[in-house]
Amino acid sequence: MVTRQEVADRAGVSVAVVSYVLNNRKIVKEETKLRVQEAIRELGYRPNQIARSLKTKKTQQIAVLIHYIGNPFEAGLLLHIETTAKLHGYFVFVQTYESDREEDLRALLMGRVDGVLLLGQSFSQETFEYFSALEVPIVSVMQPSDWDGGKRNNTPYVDIEWLPNMSSLLSHLRQQGHEKIAFMTVGGNNLHYAVRYHAFCEGMRLECLDLNGSASRILDGSGRFEQARAVLGRLLDDVVGAHLDFTAIVCANDLMAAGCLAACHERGIRVPHDLAIAGCENILMSSQLSPAITAIDYPRQLAGEAAMNMLFDRMNGFKTDPILLSGSLIVRGSTSSDE
Amino acid sequence: MVTRQEVADRAGVSVAVVSYVLNNRKIVKEETKLRVQEAIRELGYRPNQIARSLKTKKTQQIAVLIHYIGNPFEAGLLLHIETTAKLHGYFVFVQTYESDREEDLRALLMGRVDGVLLLGQSFSQETFEYFSALEVPIVSVMQPSDWDGGKRNNTPYVDIEWLPNMSSLLSHLRQQGHEKIAFMTVGGNNLHYAVRYHAFCEGMRLECLDLNGSASRILDGSGRFEQARAVLGRLLDDVVGAHLDFTAIVCANDLMAAGCLAACHERGIRVPHDLAIAGCENILMSSQLSPAITAIDYPRQLAGEAAMNMLFDRMNGFKTDPILLSGSLIVRGSTSSDE
Repeated sequence: MVTRQEVADRAGVSVAVVSYVLNNRKIVKEETKLRVQEAIRELGYRPNQIARSLKTKKTQQIAVLIHYIGNPFEAGLLLHIETTAKLHGYFVFVQTYESDREEDLRALLMGRVDGVLLLGQSFSQETFEYFSALEVPIVSVMQPSDWDGGKRNNTPYVDIEWLPNMSSLLSHLRQQGHEKIAFMTVGGNNLHYAVRYHAFCEGMRLECLDLNGSASRILDGSGRFEQARAVLGRLLDDVVGAHLDFTAIVCANDLMAAGCLAACHERGIRVPHDLAIAGCENILMSSQLSPAITAIDYPRQLAGEAAMNMLFDRMNGFKTDPILLSGSLIVRGSTSSDE
Repeated sequence: MVTRQEVADRAGVSVAVVSYVLNNRKIVKEETKLRVQEAIRELGYRPNQIARSLKTKKTQQIAVLIHYIGNPFEAGLLLHIETTAKLHGYFVFVQTYESDREEDLRALLMGRVDGVLLLGQSFSQETFEYFSALEVPIVSVMQPSDWDGGKRNNTPYVDIEWLPNMSSLLSHLRQQGHEKIAFMTVGGNNLHYAVRYHAFCEGMRLECLDLNGSASRILDGSGRFEQARAVLGRLLDDVVGAHLDFTAIVCANDLMAAGCLAACHERGIRVPHDLAIAGCENILMSSQLSPAITAIDYPRQLAGEAAMNMLFDRMNGFKTDPILLSGSLIVRGSTSSDE
């Protein structure tokens, strides 16, 4: 086993300088750094990461909590998060978040990570305080929602401006003659989908469109393709002549929009003639279906990079403000027969 | 800061018993275990994970090396890998593998993980020996390929039986009248795609189909949708009347098959009439395109679970044999006008 002392001897420097190089401290001259790295290579020296972590108190690891990696939208965010983390020499832990297992999560992450990146989850107050006490900063891609009781948590986040985008989408649908518009979301208020739902409600109000007491036109598609297909399918089967109480449906994610399209195809319901369908993420699949699906485009690369950089800023002790990206509406055949 | 001694005192046991409970050793009576857990909760005791790792020499972490998380096939594998790891109380590191950065990878993973799960990558001999010396076992989902010089590495793996599946696909294509069949793969021999390519060549031979000296009908689509679309698109633009040297194309992954379909749509090439297209993974998108894409179905859940269980077996010192799952052919409209 090669020691740090042997590396120092070979490079003709002190052990401290070897440590500086290993910890990427900027105080070492480039020439000296190259000599130390050369000695590390020649001797085959391997620092012990766990022992190093104890000394530097940095794990070089961050945790990313996902909802459902089966959604290409989340996989796309993860791709850019991982790429950015790697550029900074950081490792990414991936863990599917379950709200009823926060206690386990706290125990599992303790001492393992320097930062936590959420995908819109809203932790309990206890968990926030826990990570705060450990000085492990938390940043979210997508604004965390906690609309129960109207209180909002103050996790720094990166998201798109939902209201202008949702208003553009609803305005487009109204121009296409739609006034009765449904929304497919994911149950529970403690999810980033709630932010999209509230933007939908507010957008409907701004466009002076009727929510019809809201309940009958709010469907729960569980965020998944199969569930969305089943839920809209059952509804179509239950109404006489497949005449729904709405002529357009906005889905909180694209997987659900694809599921709705499949349910229509299976029953000979014409899209967009009988039912217009739109999504909120713009995954690759949306652009390739027939008809292609109109969607709000969520810039995954920008958002993933910005959130990781925000997390690094927080880990370095800087304050950060939320970042709102613009997003854009992409109109396709599922809402417009001109496309 | 609550100590382990205080937990022991509160529970009326020795410090060693507290350690047994924290490390999930089965030797502690259920009743005693509950008492210790109760004391841990009451006192708010938090074990230091890094310090624990040093003592137990177990990190409770495994690394998963991916190629491209933007491929829903890999994301699907990751979903089931993570779920299985979590059931065993393990964390999953995700890192995109780059063959020219194996040295960095070794340094980064050292001391951090108890096992490594590959997605068909083939490490250098040096890296294999390195992890072997550290007693960090390696398992692969998808057989690692190293066909350069004909030598094969002996990483234990889980995969599907490629040859029977590829033969079924080629037999189906021949029944549909195709004799000139192209293959779209990913450059480089050091990838799991090479296993699919070799199964294709062997299957063509078994079906007595002509490979035409192979080169002109082997395309490189880089594994991505956009590249596959561009590569087939350029070829279609370069031949007179879009008359290709082949009437069917098998793609080593479904993203490339979807890209080929898009290139055909954009040029009015009818699928399957002018060109039949098939994939090798069966991702959700393949079933939803028009026409839907014929594909070999790769059972992601079974494969992900089996590979994680194999890795745990290896971590516990058991020998393991490769597992070959059966897979199946799903015929759809992209190769058959009856579908």
